Amino acid sequence: MTVIDVHNHVVPAEFPAAADPGVAARWPCMRHGAAGDATVMMGDTAFRAIDDRCWNMPRRLAEMDAEGVDVQVLSPMPELLSYWLPAEHALTIARHVNEAIAGMIAVAPARFAGLGMVPMQDPDLAARELSALKRDHGLAGVEIGSNVNGIVPGDPRFDGFFAEAERLDLAVFIHALHPVATERIVGPPRTAPFVLFPIDTGIAAASLITGGTLRKYPKLRVGFSHGGGVLASILPRLQFGWRLETMLQDSFASPIETARRLFYDNLVYDAATQRHLIATFGASQIFLGSDYPFVARQARPGDTLAELSPAEREAMSSENARRFLGL
Amino acid sequence: MTVIDVHNHVVPAEFPAAADPGVAARWPCMRHGAAGDATVMMGDTAFRAIDDRCWNMPRRLAEMDAEGVDVQVLSPMPELLSYWLPAEHALTIARHVNEAIAGMIAVAPARFAGLGMVPMQDPDLAARELSALKRDHGLAGVEIGSNVNGIVPGDPRFDGFFAEAERLDLAVFIHALHPVATERIVGPPRTAPFVLFPIDTGIAAASLITGGTLRKYPKLRVGFSHGGGVLASILPRLQFGWRLETMLQDSFASPIETARRLFYDNLVYDAATQRHLIATFGASQIFLGSDYPFVARQARPGDTLAELSPAEREAMSSENARRFLGL
Repeated sequence: MTVIDVHNHVVPAEFPAAADPGVAARWPCMRHGAAGDATVMMGDTAFRAIDDRCWNMPRRLAEMDAEGVDVQVLSPMPELLSYWLPAEHALTIARHVNEAIAGMIAVAPARFAGLGMVPMQDPDLAARELSALKRDHGLAGVEIGSNVNGIVPGDPRFDGFFAEAERLDLAVFIHALHPVATERIVGPPRTAPFVLFPIDTGIAAASLITGGTLRKYPKLRVGFSHGGGVLASILPRLQFGWRLETMLQDSFASPIETARRLFYDNLVYDAATQRHLIATFGASQIFLGSDYPFVARQARPGDTLAELSPAEREAMSSENARRFLGL
Repeated sequence: MTVIDVHNHVVPAEFPAAADPGVAARWPCMRHGAAGDATVMMGDTAFRAIDDRCWNMPRRLAEMDAEGVDVQVLSPMPELLSYWLPAEHALTIARHVNEAIAGMIAVAPARFAGLGMVPMQDPDLAARELSALKRDHGLAGVEIGSNVNGIVPGDPRFDGFFAEAERLDLAVFIHALHPVATERIVGPPRTAPFVLFPIDTGIAAASLITGGTLRKYPKLRVGFSHGGGVLASILPRLQFGWRLETMLQDSFASPIETARRLFYDNLVYDAATQRHLIATFGASQIFLGSDYPFVARQARPGDTLAELSPAEREAMSSENARRFLGL
């Protein structure tokens, strides 16, 4: 069994300086510590303690070998997406990150593929940058947030971006980011991402379905982090409503049929939930995701397939990932 | 098999006039048409076309007989909850609705039970009114919204309300209402409730878990509409985070254990999803819900249990409902 982990993250070891003092407060930089430890700073604020697994490819390869991972599809730590900066500054970060990912892949091209980033806060600029991402950096696709400053991916303003991703045969991986409804979380602040990442991801997926994105771009390949989040819980009710109301049928295609053309990672932390994803979306649409090397990661991602049939294992360990990535 | 439908709605045939012109624009009234048809108005605005199944108990009993329903647990059409009115005016509506439900039950006390309403926008007033709801109207519990003007049920300001519900042995049924994130829905307006009712319900359920409500009120009985919405999709990740972070363990109990003390209706429109609810929450925590007589209803709710084991059918058709309601 070849194990391809489609959901894991990298951070470049260094960042260029902010070109403009106006963006310095939200500009990423790295504060390196002892023994490979580091802190990603956003301006003067510590964002996350990380270590050199985020950029040290020999160390990463050793851990992949130890955990039975053949290929990692590298994507930016989502906070680097920088949708909150003016687009031209986010473009500077995007090009730096995309080049860094290309360099990481070059260390062991048989063991890595990459998803880059583009400044989605300017959809036209984002669409134009996809060519460079493919041509200059050889990346297989792009990671985008589950929302762009509150705008869902199914919003028509992103049509040009998805059209270009389809034209260039680039995969689009949608990852939870700055979720909605943080004011509705009770408990310590660390509660929010555990409750709301699945919700934001599910809303993003629903928006592509009800926005008709896949009807407009039938060859587009879109995958979701965290098993599509809450989409599996929404889908039967949305399908019921769609069957009930001709206005919905006139506006978008069967939600379940559309959902079964999208891809999902299996980072759902639970064998019963994975079973339910397979029943809902089909074993042909799910690939492995680990969130390596961050704290909420799934160790030994291939082991999550242990209870499945050989055909399901083969599809979910590598075949679906290759189809999603166009490899 | 005795079939108890815990999730269905009523609307009184008439409403008192608004006591204050300041609230008239959002005050419910009924515009009756021919042949039992009617429109619920909010001020001068049509809210929903309904018919006399909402208040005509003989017609309701005939349809229950035809659809194999032994007992309906009547609750207000959620828009009547009136959290957006000043509390004293919402109290007027609440008392009128609770009295109307008591009158509907009196038509056939062996065939009906009731969940009333209280003005949750004033938690102290809501808590005080629970006594009257039980003593004067003989109701088994209360329906509340999945949020109260944006505040989730797990917010500490509702502690006094839940304490009183526990003390009085009243069931609390939480129903989706005016959901979050409507601005993130793409497609016709009717798309929103199909996507967002499960999300708002899931956020409400998560708030009771992470807010520690059941730790504070261990005998409290809380049930959720629409199978708890997206809670089943959130729970494995929340449990994973809780195991990972001691700060969460210090603040609230095991999410999965807490979720297995809550109740859920089975209004999820899909046999595979019902199976997943049973695997996640346990067959002891799920009761029937139909949304009768509204358009998104499940006809013949008892039939949704056809594929289950006899023990699951017995529990979910009536035993769990009796336990939830304290009957």
